[in-house]
Amino acid sequence: MRFTSEQRLDDGVLEREFTLGEIPGILWTPASAPAPLILMGHPGGLRRMRPRLVARALQSAEFGFAAAAIELPGGGDRPASAAAEGARADLRRALEAGEPVGAEVVDRLVLPLVDKAVPEWQAALDALLSLPGIGGPAGYSGGVISIGIRLAVVEPRISAAVLFAGSFVPRTMFEEARRVTIPLHVLLQWDDEGNDRQAALDLFDAFGSREKTLHANLGGHTGVPRFAGDAAVRFLARHLS
Amino acid sequence: MRFTSEQRLDDGVLEREFTLGEIPGILWTPASAPAPLILMGHPGGLRRMRPRLVARALQSAEFGFAAAAIELPGGGDRPASAAAEGARADLRRALEAGEPVGAEVVDRLVLPLVDKAVPEWQAALDALLSLPGIGGPAGYSGGVISIGIRLAVVEPRISAAVLFAGSFVPRTMFEEARRVTIPLHVLLQWDDEGNDRQAALDLFDAFGSREKTLHANLGGHTGVPRFAGDAAVRFLARHLS
Repeated sequence: MRFTSEQRLDDGVLEREFTLGEIPGILWTPASAPAPLILMGHPGGLRRMRPRLVARALQSAEFGFAAAAIELPGGGDRPASAAAEGARADLRRALEAGEPVGAEVVDRLVLPLVDKAVPEWQAALDALLSLPGIGGPAGYSGGVISIGIRLAVVEPRISAAVLFAGSFVPRTMFEEARRVTIPLHVLLQWDDEGNDRQAALDLFDAFGSREKTLHANLGGHTGVPRFAGDAAVRFLARHLS
Repeated sequence: MRFTSEQRLDDGVLEREFTLGEIPGILWTPASAPAPLILMGHPGGLRRMRPRLVARALQSAEFGFAAAAIELPGGGDRPASAAAEGARADLRRALEAGEPVGAEVVDRLVLPLVDKAVPEWQAALDALLSLPGIGGPAGYSGGVISIGIRLAVVEPRISAAVLFAGSFVPRTMFEEARRVTIPLHVLLQWDDEGNDRQAALDLFDAFGSREKTLHANLGGHTGVPRFAGDAAVRFLARHLS
């Protein structure tokens, strides 16, 4: 892990860009250290997502958390596989035609992404948890929800997760969801255009966790209200602090 | 309104029993005054509900709220109408036979209760808001959800409401729900035996409020987790404080 830039933000939060091998990432650490860590999930495209990630990182820092994000495979300037490009083109075609997105397209789009991204998040966790200012434990917060589910199943260092409903979920992820046992806090935007509300409710039902909470709010995909973000960080504070 | 007893609870909270005409009630006021007021809904039977109401009142007092509850028509020692008794018997028969509860039974059970209870809660509001320690504004928190809906529609002094899903809802209440415009926070127990989960989700969808949030948690009807109660009071604090 190599830091490539740093700057101070509000409230003494230190923002540092890094690369982990060829993967770019950003780490935000609060003034108080050592801090527990939140891995911030996102749909890919760190540069585009940055304003929202910074807002979430500052909100997390208010509760004493460090936060980090790495670029997804195929996101931003990272090379995309031909298969992923093909699946994305098929998805776009279905959406533009107003047709239902086939389960097979969702599988081709999401499953290889999860298979590739999860080991990368785990490598990031190795590097981040060895830094002096980061004390652990760690949580995951964000989308892609299938990445969060897989991480919750395979990565014992993730103690709790906030999952953002609102992406296409392969059928096999429902089986993985049953194997999740860590505390979960699921955010659902009730009017999310691109999201199948019933599928999100079914997925919430499937999770095996003894503590799981669903917070549904009005508004579209990017309209998560500030108070809902606060409640999500408060959930993590209850389990990680 | 006549006070009939008083005692100090934890944190300097003053608990006073009162009667409003023939209706018994309880008022809890925090050490800090004047306090905004939460009307605490419940399924009837103040004596039986008291331990849970006290817990909710103390939780509310931590956020500076006064809280009050009055007995429902037909609840506790209050006389029940023959029609209500008949509807209740029909409900019991259906539940014991494992049959679906007919919409007509629900109408006969709930609508007269709402018609009678809501003016009583409004009279209680008149009396409570004129007390020196109570400053307003006021919110409603609890079940019976149909009472909360009607109050939210007809009573302009109710500025925000926490509604507990988990009671039978007459079909016409879905129409009233569309006319609700105040901020809402709906609590749903995901595994509530006596509750139709889909009906609760449909009702949430129907509410006309621009700000509405659904918090679903695992567990049965009386198993609302402590953190969910905290989040509900925090919602009221955001809107009433």
